[in-house]
Amino acid sequence: MDEKETGRTEAFSDGVFAVAITLLVLNIQVPQHILLLDGEVLSILGSQWPMFLAFVTSFATIGIMWLNHHRIFTHIKRTDNTLLILNLLLLLVIVFIPFPTALLAQYLAQYTAHPNEHVAVAVYNGTFLLMAIFFNLIWRYAAYNNRLLDKRADPEAVQAISKQFRFGPLLYVILFGLGWISVPASIVMSLLLAVFFALPGRTSRPLPKV
Amino acid sequence: MDEKETGRTEAFSDGVFAVAITLLVLNIQVPQHILLLDGEVLSILGSQWPMFLAFVTSFATIGIMWLNHHRIFTHIKRTDNTLLILNLLLLLVIVFIPFPTALLAQYLAQYTAHPNEHVAVAVYNGTFLLMAIFFNLIWRYAAYNNRLLDKRADPEAVQAISKQFRFGPLLYVILFGLGWISVPASIVMSLLLAVFFALPGRTSRPLPKV
Amino acid sequence: MDEKETGRTEAFSDGVFAVAITLLVLNIQVPQHILLLDGEVLSILGSQWPMFLAFVTSFATIGIMWLNHHRIFTHIKRTDNTLLILNLLLLLVIVFIPFPTALLAQYLAQYTAHPNEHVAVAVYNGTFLLMAIFFNLIWRYAAYNNRLLDKRADPEAVQAISKQFRFGPLLYVILFGLGWISVPASIVMSLLLAVFFALPGRTSRPLPKV
Amino acid sequence: MDEKETGRTEAFSDGVFAVAITLLVLNIQVPQHILLLDGEVLSILGSQWPMFLAFVTSFATIGIMWLNHHRIFTHIKRTDNTLLILNLLLLLVIVFIPFPTALLAQYLAQYTAHPNEHVAVAVYNGTFLLMAIFFNLIWRYAAYNNRLLDKRADPEAVQAISKQFRFGPLLYVILFGLGWISVPASIVMSLLLAVFFALPGRTSRPLPKV
Repeated sequence: MDEKETGRTEAFSDGVFAVAITLLVLNIQVPQHILLLDGEVLSILGSQWPMFLAFVTSFATIGIMWLNHHRIFTHIKRTDNTLLILNLLLLLVIVFIPFPTALLAQYLAQYTAHPNEHVAVAVYNGTFLLMAIFFNLIWRYAAYNNRLLDKRADPEAVQAISKQFRFGPLLYVILFGLGWISVPASIVMSLLLAVFFALPGRTSRPLPKV
Repeated sequence: MDEKETGRTEAFSDGVFAVAITLLVLNIQVPQHILLLDGEVLSILGSQWPMFLAFVTSFATIGIMWLNHHRIFTHIKRTDNTLLILNLLLLLVIVFIPFPTALLAQYLAQYTAHPNEHVAVAVYNGTFLLMAIFFNLIWRYAAYNNRLLDKRADPEAVQAISKQFRFGPLLYVILFGLGWISVPASIVMSLLLAVFFALPGRTSRPLPKV
Repeated sequence: MDEKETGRTEAFSDGVFAVAITLLVLNIQVPQHILLLDGEVLSILGSQWPMFLAFVTSFATIGIMWLNHHRIFTHIKRTDNTLLILNLLLLLVIVFIPFPTALLAQYLAQYTAHPNEHVAVAVYNGTFLLMAIFFNLIWRYAAYNNRLLDKRADPEAVQAISKQFRFGPLLYVILFGLGWISVPASIVMSLLLAVFFALPGRTSRPLPKV
Repeated sequence: MDEKETGRTEAFSDGVFAVAITLLVLNIQVPQHILLLDGEVLSILGSQWPMFLAFVTSFATIGIMWLNHHRIFTHIKRTDNTLLILNLLLLLVIVFIPFPTALLAQYLAQYTAHPNEHVAVAVYNGTFLLMAIFFNLIWRYAAYNNRLLDKRADPEAVQAISKQFRFGPLLYVILFGLGWISVPASIVMSLLLAVFFALPGRTSRPLPKV
């Protein structure tokens, strides 16, 4: 039997990613019973920048995580119980993200008044750290001795992924630490990490021309 | 290799479109603790027409956007990192739509009292403009020199799509401008735009009889 | 070309059905800040029977509608613009259902005090009537002269579906009328209609033994 | 005809599982208008442990239920009306889970003050019992005389599943009873049950090496 076994795991994961990424918008509320004069609308939009920033950061992180999930599952072809459970643990973290995002948004709104408070950011970055750890476990478990990979998986592409992900948890540990020193720096860094993981691994060969 | 690479991108996008289009209903609330006498229910339904109008306009726009996403991905057969990221940017806008929809609904409820206020409508139309821009970028990137298209894609159908979409962003720029002049006219125009993009491109050949 | 064209339409529709049917639970709220003594929990559960009833009725209706969507799309094999738009109109109604469900639940909670009020029920039944109409339009459009059906579609199965659905809108018109006469009777009838449409059409042949 | 008939049933079920499992996070709320000083955030997180516990328990249960749904549908290859309706009944329970989860979370927050109250836990465990019953009905209906199974289904794997699930409802009856005696013990037991059903059946053969 040589067909792909991971179809339904990918479908379920796609569903969870899609719902979690869309629920983020529920954190952005229109204040009720306000007069929507232009000045007021602008001032609401202005004062809600922390919500928009938290929304975009979390959207980028979940989106890129989906992109990488997609990327590794083009190589993973078989599935077993351990993989399914590791995948559920990753999804547990993904599903949880709207909560620390809401926490971060409220925290940012008060940041200038209380610049020395860091727990909310630590919860946010800690969630991303957990996510990076489970994501790595999935890939390492599947790629170890090509355990669950496609027999025809390109070894260079596999190595490129392993290489790129090797420092994932470490980078998120640094992010976690940075949150205790400088909140703005840690937010910039989580956006940069999203960009870094959006890029394909360096030694990955281009897609073959059809 | 000649098989379709875009399956999971389409599945994830379908999920995001489906969740975003369904979350729109959360904007339509039943007032709590009311007596549901017939007169009251009617007056609630009557006074909520802005919510219903905003709901239908956004549903039509997201629905038609899905339809066109579906349409272009019958021709796009390969995928690369740039396409995936452009697609994520489109989905970011789609996921955001429930917020400007709620803003527009509240705004419309106060419209007759404050007909000279336009920011809420500008946010709404601006969101659609962004959506049109990212959508065009996806198609142009994929169709440029047939970069990611099916080798067997019908050139006429491809050109019909390019032709129909060419003016998309421009039309939404006009919509955006119209919102500053006349709010009712801009809402009528966004419904008309949805209808226009629901129609297939003019020179597209009919589906072959099987 | 003989392959199924409707894959992505079904996937998107599945997503919308799945989200809409799951959002129904958001109508059932745990009252905040209550003491959860046994007596209180029981009395809450007891007083929330209208929410549970409305939840089950709407779940059954959306679920059975999905089942029939599934059933007709085993025969529909091709797709065109009209079909996609009719399908979007059906989904518009499906997505809307959580609202009349919440309205009905609140109404039922006050029913014994105000048994002569009928608008909330009319909105609920009217939504189902619209749903039945769009559903019929999809089937009639696709089945007319086998326009979009599988060439190998079993004519008897096709006729059985047509026969069963022929009276769908009429039955929902009767339901709509009944709601103005007796609310309990109309709720029983909508559950019975769900059961009726859950059964396969009478002349449909059994699945072939493999 | 030998192809898989259950594709769309699995897709719809995946969607419902994915939405229900993600909606659980909506129960975890960030208190509004609080000062997010570190001490306060920590005390909020600390006082919300019942929400986190209920979130994880329900996530684990829905996740494992999906995993087993996936497992049995690798063997179920055909579908009929009864199976679809049994599956809808299972999904009705799955969709309902966010409500008893919210109830349990509020109850746990008050547990130390009122350790002799048990109805909220009984509702929670009773929901899981119902879920186990419908799940068993699906498998028994499909596996009875291999009614809907793949002709090539491995009899040992089928028997291993039947053996593992045989005691499912009984175990959940015990859980239900335990909830009336000791709330902490019943919560530990529901997590253990999730782990038990996450493990593959004992006599199931390893996946064949490709």
